[in-house]
Amino acid sequence: MKVLVVGANGQIGKHLVQFIQDHDGLQAKAMIRKQEQASYFEDLGAEVALVDLEDDIETIQKAANDVDAVVFTAGSGPHTGKDKTIMIDLDGAVKTIEATKAAGVKRFVMISSFDTSREAIQEAPESFSPYVAAKHYADVWLRDSGLDYTIIHPGRLTNDEGTGKVSLAEQTKPDQVAREDIARVILSSLVHDSTIGQEFQVVQGDQEVDQAIQSLN
Amino acid sequence: MKVLVVGANGQIGKHLVQFIQDHDGLQAKAMIRKQEQASYFEDLGAEVALVDLEDDIETIQKAANDVDAVVFTAGSGPHTGKDKTIMIDLDGAVKTIEATKAAGVKRFVMISSFDTSREAIQEAPESFSPYVAAKHYADVWLRDSGLDYTIIHPGRLTNDEGTGKVSLAEQTKPDQVAREDIARVILSSLVHDSTIGQEFQVVQGDQEVDQAIQSLN
Repeated sequence: MKVLVVGANGQIGKHLVQFIQDHDGLQAKAMIRKQEQASYFEDLGAEVALVDLEDDIETIQKAANDVDAVVFTAGSGPHTGKDKTIMIDLDGAVKTIEATKAAGVKRFVMISSFDTSREAIQEAPESFSPYVAAKHYADVWLRDSGLDYTIIHPGRLTNDEGTGKVSLAEQTKPDQVAREDIARVILSSLVHDSTIGQEFQVVQGDQEVDQAIQSLN
Repeated sequence: MKVLVVGANGQIGKHLVQFIQDHDGLQAKAMIRKQEQASYFEDLGAEVALVDLEDDIETIQKAANDVDAVVFTAGSGPHTGKDKTIMIDLDGAVKTIEATKAAGVKRFVMISSFDTSREAIQEAPESFSPYVAAKHYADVWLRDSGLDYTIIHPGRLTNDEGTGKVSLAEQTKPDQVAREDIARVILSSLVHDSTIGQEFQVVQGDQEVDQAIQSLN
């Protein structure tokens, strides 16, 4: 299974490409914006596709044409300019979903925000609500897309070393989680089709990732 | 027919409330944010509802419960902060659509931007594209809402005095148009049910508004 990682040069993305390359039967294609980002992924034996998420759907589709699954882990982050919030977190995600459909690929894993419900938009601090809204509408678009989706809602992300253990459920208590452990959860979601049509929150915890994923249902 | 005008205190909205009040059989309810904006509308004999578009759906619904049609002409405008673009032009519009449905009202007139197609997002200058994207997703939401919608796509808006004449078609050449004339087009759309399910661009021209609206089909 070849997996297109959209946002590969982000911190979750870099861990994920490595985990995919280390996993039997999986191969990563890193979608990145700049040529100078390529060597990290080439050194891991991954393919590379140079595409900007502000490009059009057809350009993104070219990167997706020969893969079996797409992971969207790109993000402007909550603290970039709000213009990027709508153009990357919402429109970039929607274009990637449409490019995936156009490429005839069915499997899509979305890295969302912890809570993207209508209530969460209302309750978010003013500076954070545009980001929550963008992620909300991207999730809505994916749920209605007809793709075999999984939506992962991580807690507050840290750069701590991962533990390989998490707490994972439709609703968990808010808490932090290492980006490295989110990358493990993505990998596990890709290899367990039981996650298709599911969405769940993930925070730090004491259950092995694969076990947590398999006990979802 | 009572019409809730969302964004009544804007320049299109102010003209529109006046035209509605001057029209036999129509009555306006002006949705505004601040008490000090109320006297202008009360002097016209219009009702007033004090609601902020950043409030929740239930609060907006209360303003819509006793009306027969909703007009969305609120807008952060293309030059406000990009956080307001997503929170007002997209999320405010979507909440108004959902509040309209929840109130059991069927008729909805949206004031959109001149071109909100996928291509227009790609081709817009970088500073303008977030606004086009927000209006795009609001229009998509409305088309899928099940409401009796009309989507009006005005050209470059001016504060010139209106002429009562426009050029109006599914696609027109880009040109300017007076806000006062857009208010006339909204009024004419409300009284001509032939505009239900239609969307069209409007610029300055030489056809009487009512004639232009009636020759749409």
